Amino acid sequence: MNIALITRMLGNIALVIGGSMAFSLPWALPWFGGNWRYEQAGFFAILASMALCAAVGLLLRHWGRGGGQLFRKEAMAIVGLSWILATILGAFPFLLSGTQRAAGVRMTVVDAMFEAQSGFSTTGATVLTDLEVPDDPTEPPLVPRCILFWRSSTHFLGGLGIVVLFVAILGQGSAGKALMRAEMPGPSKVTPQARMQHTAWVLFGIYAGLNGSLTLLLCVQGLSLFDALCHAFGTMATGGFSTYNDSIGHFAAASGYNAPLIEMTIALFMFLAGTNFMLMYYVLLRRPEVMLRDVEWRVYVAILGAVTVMVVGFGLLHGDFDRAGMGARPPASVEPLPGGEAGADEADSRLPVANALRYGLFQVASIMTTTGFCTDDFDRWNAFGRGVLLLLMFVGGCAGSTGGGLKVIRHILFAKILRLEIEQAYHPNVVRPLRLAGQVVETKELRRQVMVYFGLILAVFATSWLFVLMAEPDSTWTDHGHSREHKLIDAASGVAATLNNIGPGLGVVGATKNYANFTPWTKLLFVWLMMLGRLEMFAILVVLAPGFWRTK
Amino acid sequence: MNIALITRMLGNIALVIGGSMAFSLPWALPWFGGNWRYEQAGFFAILASMALCAAVGLLLRHWGRGGGQLFRKEAMAIVGLSWILATILGAFPFLLSGTQRAAGVRMTVVDAMFEAQSGFSTTGATVLTDLEVPDDPTEPPLVPRCILFWRSSTHFLGGLGIVVLFVAILGQGSAGKALMRAEMPGPSKVTPQARMQHTAWVLFGIYAGLNGSLTLLLCVQGLSLFDALCHAFGTMATGGFSTYNDSIGHFAAASGYNAPLIEMTIALFMFLAGTNFMLMYYVLLRRPEVMLRDVEWRVYVAILGAVTVMVVGFGLLHGDFDRAGMGARPPASVEPLPGGEAGADEADSRLPVANALRYGLFQVASIMTTTGFCTDDFDRWNAFGRGVLLLLMFVGGCAGSTGGGLKVIRHILFAKILRLEIEQAYHPNVVRPLRLAGQVVETKELRRQVMVYFGLILAVFATSWLFVLMAEPDSTWTDHGHSREHKLIDAASGVAATLNNIGPGLGVVGATKNYANFTPWTKLLFVWLMMLGRLEMFAILVVLAPGFWRTK
Repeated sequence: MNIALITRMLGNIALVIGGSMAFSLPWALPWFGGNWRYEQAGFFAILASMALCAAVGLLLRHWGRGGGQLFRKEAMAIVGLSWILATILGAFPFLLSGTQRAAGVRMTVVDAMFEAQSGFSTTGATVLTDLEVPDDPTEPPLVPRCILFWRSSTHFLGGLGIVVLFVAILGQGSAGKALMRAEMPGPSKVTPQARMQHTAWVLFGIYAGLNGSLTLLLCVQGLSLFDALCHAFGTMATGGFSTYNDSIGHFAAASGYNAPLIEMTIALFMFLAGTNFMLMYYVLLRRPEVMLRDVEWRVYVAILGAVTVMVVGFGLLHGDFDRAGMGARPPASVEPLPGGEAGADEADSRLPVANALRYGLFQVASIMTTTGFCTDDFDRWNAFGRGVLLLLMFVGGCAGSTGGGLKVIRHILFAKILRLEIEQAYHPNVVRPLRLAGQVVETKELRRQVMVYFGLILAVFATSWLFVLMAEPDSTWTDHGHSREHKLIDAASGVAATLNNIGPGLGVVGATKNYANFTPWTKLLFVWLMMLGRLEMFAILVVLAPGFWRTK
Repeated sequence: MNIALITRMLGNIALVIGGSMAFSLPWALPWFGGNWRYEQAGFFAILASMALCAAVGLLLRHWGRGGGQLFRKEAMAIVGLSWILATILGAFPFLLSGTQRAAGVRMTVVDAMFEAQSGFSTTGATVLTDLEVPDDPTEPPLVPRCILFWRSSTHFLGGLGIVVLFVAILGQGSAGKALMRAEMPGPSKVTPQARMQHTAWVLFGIYAGLNGSLTLLLCVQGLSLFDALCHAFGTMATGGFSTYNDSIGHFAAASGYNAPLIEMTIALFMFLAGTNFMLMYYVLLRRPEVMLRDVEWRVYVAILGAVTVMVVGFGLLHGDFDRAGMGARPPASVEPLPGGEAGADEADSRLPVANALRYGLFQVASIMTTTGFCTDDFDRWNAFGRGVLLLLMFVGGCAGSTGGGLKVIRHILFAKILRLEIEQAYHPNVVRPLRLAGQVVETKELRRQVMVYFGLILAVFATSWLFVLMAEPDSTWTDHGHSREHKLIDAASGVAATLNNIGPGLGVVGATKNYANFTPWTKLLFVWLMMLGRLEMFAILVVLAPGFWRTK
C-alpha cells in the first residue's frame, strides 16, 4: 500500500475544498446582497476554514512527498478517505460561524458533520429548521447567507466528484465497473487510459454547462443570482438543499414568480441530472439515437412516467391535490381522527388534473432522481402515493448520473436475473446468458455483483432501522406533535432517504420537516448511511476493513 | 412431462385429504362434547366434503392410470399442484357448513380458501372473528367445533407434508437441496434413495410423537382432549390456529388453568418445532452432540436468546409488560393521544421481570418459529419491540423444521457471503470458499441460490406491499377504529406475516385482530403469498411458468 501517495492525494483534495470555499465569501458582502452585520460571523468562519484546509492540505502534501503509481487499492483508499476528510473539513464553516440549528441552539459537531456529509453526498437532508431572513429586520437570520452558499456548494462539489471520479476515472466503484461495461453500447466498452482523461474533462464540461444553463434560466425566471446558483447546484447534483424553508414550494407561495414555469424547469433539469452523463455526451456528438436506444434510459423514463400516472390517478381519487402546495395545508402534526377526512372539505377544485400533474410529476421526479426538492407535502398523500415514493427511493437515477439510489440498471439486471433463475429451477441444464437489448452482457462477476449489492442494501437497511428504533426515544415523535405509533415507518423512511441520498422521508422527516430533532447517535448513523449510499458501499466498507490495510 | 403420473399422485393426495377429514367428524357428536344442534351443519358439510374428495381423488386416479417414473420435473409439479388442490378441497368444509366469518356474515369462497391455505401452509392467519361458544346457550357459535377441528387438522397435515415431503423426499425444494447438504454434518450428506424412505418414516415418527406428547402434556395440564389436540397441531406445525379468540392468552384469562405452565410447555414445543427434525433424529440415536455442535441450531438458539433479552429489556424500560396478557389491555383501536402514555397508569407491578420474561420469551419464540400464538398483545409494545418482531418474521426456524420464514441457515450463509464479498472487493484474486463450522460448504450453486432467494423474497415483498396499498381502501382501517396513517406499516406486516407463514402482524392484523376485513383481492394475494412462502418460492413459481409445461 502506497501510503505516501494516498496522503498526498488527500492533501490535494483538502486544498480543493479550501479553495472552493472562497466562492462563498462574496455573498457576505453588501455588493452581493449581504447584510454585513449578520454575515460577518459567517465570513470570518469561512476564512478560518480556508486557512485550516490549506494547512491540512499542505501538511498532508508534505508528509506524502515522493512518487508512486496509482493502483486499484490506492484508488479505493483515496475515494473512501477523501469522503471522510471532506465531511470533517466541510463542517468547519457551520461550526465556526455559530450557525443556529434552531432559534437559540447552535449547531453541534455532529450537526455540522451531518450537514456537510448531506451536502457532499448530494442527499440534501438538513438539520437546519429556519433558513430564511426573518421579516422583522431587527431579528438576525439563523443561518448567514454565505454559509447557505457554502452549504449548496457542497452539492456542486459532491456532484462533480461523482461525475468525474466515479464515472470517468473509477467507473463507479467495483460494482459499477461491470455495470458501466454492461450499460454502454458498443464502442465505448473499451476505454483506454488516454481516453479516460479526455472523458473526464468532457463530463466535467457537461456538468458545469448544465449548472450554468439552469442558473441562467432561473435568473431569467426572476430568481436572484444567489437563489439561482444555489438551486442549480441542488438540482444538477440531485442534492436538494434549498435556500427556503418551503423548498421549491416557496416560489408558489411568494409573489412575483411564475411558479409552475420554475417548477417545470427544475423538474426537467432533475430529469437530466438523473440521466447517464455519457449519454448526454453522445447527444452532443449528434448521436441522440444512442440515448434513445439505451435500455436503462428507456426504463428510467418508463418508470418516471408510469409512477407519475399512478400517483396522479390515486391522488385525484383521494383528493390529495385539492389543497396542494407546501404552505396550503394544515401542519402534518395534526393527527386526523380515525375515520375523519381531515383537510378534504375546503377543496380548491379548479383544474384538479392540471394541479395533480404539476405536483405529482415534480414530486415523483424529485424522489426518483434522489434530489429531494418539494413543492407539495407528500406526507399528506394517500398511503399508496407515500408507499410508492418510499419504494422509488430505492430505484434512483441511471448509472453514470449524479442520482443516488440503487440505479435503474441494477433493477433491470435484478429482474432479469430472477427470471433466469426461475427458469433454471426447472431447466437446470439450460443456462441462458444475461442479455440487455439483445446483447449478451453476462460476465463472470456481473450476476453476483448485482445480487450482492441488493443484499448489502437490504442488510444495511434492516440493521440501521433497528438501530434507529433502539437509539431514538419516543419523545423525538411525541414532543414534536407526531404519534409514536409512526416511529416504525418514519424510521424506515429516514434510513431509506439517507442511504439512497434523497433527503426528505415521511412523518418526522417529511417534506415540511427535518432531521434536527434526532439524537446525535442517530445523526451519526445517518452520516454513515449517506456516505455508504453515495460510495455504493464498497469504497467505504473496504477502508474500514482491517485486512484492507494489512496486505499489500 | 408425465402428466398421467402427476394426475394419479394428485388423486392420491385428494384421497388422503378426504380421509383425514373423518377425524373431525366425532367432535360433532355429544359423546365427544359436541352440541348436535349446532354441530350438524358442520358434520354433514364434512361428510359431503369427504365424498367430494373421494370423487375427485378416484377420478384423478382413473385419468392417471398407467405407470411412469418420478423425475425432478414431475416431483416439482406434484408439490406445487398438490398445494393448490389442497387449498380448494380443504375449503369445502368451511363453505358447506355455512360457517360465519362474523356474526351474520357467511364465509365466502375466498374466505374459505384463505382459511384452508392458512392451515395447510401452517401460517395460522384467520378470517374468523369469533371461535368460541357464546356464554348465552341460546346463541349458536359462529363456527361449529368439528369445523374448528378440521381447521386445526390442516396444520397437522401441512406440517406433515413439509416434514415428509420436503425434508425427506425433496430435500426442501430446489434451493433447499444445497442447503440440506450444507447444514448436515458428515455422513448424512450422501442420502441414497433407499435411505430416503427410511428417513421419511423416522421423521414422520418424530413429528407424530411430538404431537402426541404435547397433547398428553396439555391434557394433564387441564385442557380438554379437543383443545389439547388442536393446540398440539398448531404448535408442532408452527401453525398458530387456536380454538380461542385470545389464542394461548385464553388460559391466563380463564380460571382453572396453570397458565404459565401451559405457556412454557407450548413455548418449549414451538422451539422444538423450529428445530431441524434430522437433528432430533440424531438425539434419538443417542448422538446429542450432533445437535449441540450444529451451527444453524446454535445460531437459532442464540438469536432466540438475544432477541428475548432485548425485548424484555426494552419492554421493561417502556413499561410494556405492566399490564400484560391478551385481555388486560385497552383495545388497540384506542389511538393514544400524541404524547400520551395510554394504559400505563394502572400498572400491575408485581414481579415485573418475571412477567416480562414470561410474555417476552413466549412471543419471541412464537414469532421466530413462525407459529403465531399470542399471550400478549405485542401491538402495544414499544417501537423497538414491534420492529424486532417484524424482522424476526423473516428469520424463521431451522431448515428441515416445520417453521417458515427464510430459515436461519440462509441468514448465516447470507452474512458469510456478504463478508467474503467485501473482502473480495480489495482482494479480487484471493477467492476464499464459504465455510460452516470450519468445513467448506461452497458448491457452484450455493452462493447464487442463497442470494437469489433473498432477492426473490425482497421482490415479492415489495410488489405485494404496493398491491395491498393499491387494493385496500382506507376504510379497512378507518371503519375498524384504526388510523389510516398506519396503513403503510400494517400492510407491510400483513405481507411479512403471510409470506413467512406467521399469522398475526401489526395493527389491523395484530395479535387481537384478524384478516376478516380485507377485500377479496387482498385475501387472494395473501393466499398466494402463504403458498409462495411455504413452498420456498420455486415449487409454485415454476408450475405457473408456461415454459415449465411446454418442455420435456
